[in-house]
This record gives sequence, structure tokens and C-alpha cells, in this order.
Amino acid sequence: MHRANAEMKSCIEECLRCYQMCLSTAMGHCLEAGGRHTEPQHLSLMMACAEMCRTSAHFMLIGSELHKRSCRLCAEICQQCAADCERIGEMKDCVDACRRCAESCQKMAA
Amino acid sequence: MHRANAEMKSCIEECLRCYQMCLSTAMGHCLEAGGRHTEPQHLSLMMACAEMCRTSAHFMLIGSELHKRSCRLCAEICQQCAADCERIGEMKDCVDACRRCAESCQKMAA
Amino acid sequence: MHRANAEMKSCIEECLRCYQMCLSTAMGHCLEAGGRHTEPQHLSLMMACAEMCRTSAHFMLIGSELHKRSCRLCAEICQQCAADCERIGEMKDCVDACRRCAESCQKMAA
Amino acid sequence: MHRANAEMKSCIEECLRCYQMCLSTAMGHCLEAGGRHTEPQHLSLMMACAEMCRTSAHFMLIGSELHKRSCRLCAEICQQCAADCERIGEMKDCVDACRRCAESCQKMAA
Repeated sequence: MHRANAEMKSCIEECLRCYQMCLSTAMGHCLEAGGRHTEPQHLSLMMACAEMCRTSAHFMLIGSELHKRSCRLCAEICQQCAADCERIGEMKDCVDACRRCAESCQKMAA
Repeated sequence: MHRANAEMKSCIEECLRCYQMCLSTAMGHCLEAGGRHTEPQHLSLMMACAEMCRTSAHFMLIGSELHKRSCRLCAEICQQCAADCERIGEMKDCVDACRRCAESCQKMAA
Repeated sequence: MHRANAEMKSCIEECLRCYQMCLSTAMGHCLEAGGRHTEPQHLSLMMACAEMCRTSAHFMLIGSELHKRSCRLCAEICQQCAADCERIGEMKDCVDACRRCAESCQKMAA
Repeated sequence: MHRANAEMKSCIEECLRCYQMCLSTAMGHCLEAGGRHTEPQHLSLMMACAEMCRTSAHFMLIGSELHKRSCRLCAEICQQCAADCERIGEMKDCVDACRRCAESCQKMAA
């Protein structure tokens, strides 16, 4: 990875992992489970989280100094998504991926 | 557009217009002009701007309340991109698109 | 738009319009309507259509000769999405946007 | 990952790896090296490859049956990108990532 030190590489990995987890869980598990899992607010939050993770990884990959700003926003959204997935329940893997990504993004934003 | 009032519709349009302008100018005009136009920092900023505009439009289209946060960041990045395109020169259309998008996003973020 | 003749400009517009329509309808109307509208297969098709439209617009905006290939695939997916939205019902605007985009993409792919 | 068997998981990984490699190489190594590395046609192909890899991963993650179609197109684009990176030279890692992704996508498309 171009000019990406070890910490940034790790953050890109966490962002892409969280993107994969949120997107596949929302479009797979949630749509099949139905009920609270398909509340528009919840699904919209999961999709926003997936999109922001993808975008933050993109910012780091193109070598933009603005990645600190995108990572800060990404960390906040991941925290919210983790809390909402915990409220709905049955999404431990997604909660964990969001928390790990939030932690990694917070470090990058510092 | 779902639940999108007139102001949000207009912001989505500005974001997608700015995305188109930054991306096509960076990959077209800048690469062909060379010189200062291909400074990594400049091109990276234009690509970050295009990506953030696309993402902010996405947040509004999925009905996420977090669009206020993405629009705030988008406005800042558009301002920086406008200033940098002005510094490089010969990109008046791109400067205008960035300024219009920044203004529209600031209203959404308020 | 850089080197984009009138036909390509029009196709970019149709792709971004269809992207907006499919994404906002899926995450808004469909999630709120429930029932058949949230069948995983249907929502997944709408999201794939939105993503492919966005990608085809991107290919044209970066001036890639490969846009003929992405437009061909985009046209096929839009046709499938239009047919599925017609089957589910109550999504006339989305059906129209998909058909218009498919027609425009087919011309670009020729 | 939702309903993703081992082969699909592996293909998602290859697509996201190739996306990262093409994007970071284009915006980092190529812009800094200049000369042939910034030929508009070459950079445009690398960006198209990055975008298509990202999109194919997305199709698999949302559980769309259309992933076979996106993977077929992705494989072709990766092959072209590998050949062009080989022609330009000094991008062995990118060539390898493109070839691996092409191979994995071809299996998914079969």
C-alpha cells in the first residue's frame, strides 16, 4: 500500500471488514429475519455505516490528508451502528466489527 | 424521491453535479494538462471531493438522519477543493460546482 | 463534461437518475410497505441495479473505453429490475427510470 | 458472511484486494512516477478496474444472483489492467493482484 504505514493499513482493513459485515448482515440476515430487523431506521443506519466505512477506506487509499476527517465521522457512525445492532439483538459479529472499526478510526483521526 | 423535501432534493442534485464535475475534470482535463494539474496532492483532493459528494448524496437517498453529518464534512471538502482548483487555475466550472455544493450542504447540515 | 458527447451526457444523466430512484425506492417505499416489497431477492435486485447504474456513470465520467461493457451489463440489470418492480407493483416511477436507463445504456453499448 | 460459501468469500477478498491495489497504485505510485504512468488511458483503466472490483464485491455481499455477471466483466477488466500495467512496467504487485482477481472472478462467473 502506497505510503500507508502499519496503522493506516490496519485501519483500511478494519473499514473494509466493517463495510462487508454491515452490508451483508443488512441485506442477508436482517431482510430474512424481518420484524425489528427491517425497521427502516435500523437498515438505513447499517447501510450508512457500510457506505461510510467504504468511503473512509477510499480516502486512505488515495492518500488524502482528509482521511482524518472521514475517519472521525466513520468512528461516530460505527459507534451508533454498534449500539443499534445491540438493541435489535442477534448481531454480535456486526457489533464487534463496528466497535473495532470505530476504535481504529478514532486513532487515525487523532 | 422518498421523503426528500425540496431542499434535500436540491442538495442531492448539487452533490451529484459536483461529483461528476470533480471526477471528470480530474481524470480528463487534469491528466491531459499535466504540470501542476497532476500534482498528487491536487488530484487526491479532487478525487476525495468527488467521493464525498457521492457519499453525501447516498446518505440522503437512503433516508439516513446522518446526512447532516456527511453534508457538513462534504461542505468543508468542497470548500478546500474549490480553493485548490482556483490556485491551479483554468478550472472555473469545477470551482463553481464545488462552491454551490458547499453552500447547499451547509444548509442541510444546519 | 470532458469529451462526453451529447449522447454520453444523456446516458450519464439516465444512469444517475435510475441510481437515485432505485436506491431511494428500495430504502424508503419498499422498507415501509413491507410484505412482498421486502423480499430479499427483490431488494437485492434493486440495490444491485442502483450500484451498477452508479458504476456505469463512473466509467463514463473517467473517460474509460470500457464504458461500453459496463453499459451493456447495466442495461440488462435495469431490464430485470424493471420487470421485477412491475411484478411487485406500485413502483411505476422506478419501472420507468429503469426502462429509460436500459434504453440509453443499450445505445452506448452498441 | 451471509450465505457466502468458501469460494465466494475468497472471491470477495480478491476483489477488495485488487481494488485496494489498483486505487492506491494509481493515485500514489503512478502520479509520483509521472511519464507513461500518467497517460490518461492507463490511469483511466486502473481506476475502472478498481471501481469494477469494488462493485463485484458489493454484488456478492448483497447476495445478488447477478454477481455472476459482474464477476465476468470484472475478470475481463482485470486481465486488461494486468496487461497494461505489465506494458508500463514497475507494477508487479498490481499485475499479480489483477491476475489473481481475474482468476477468482472467472470461477465465480462459470
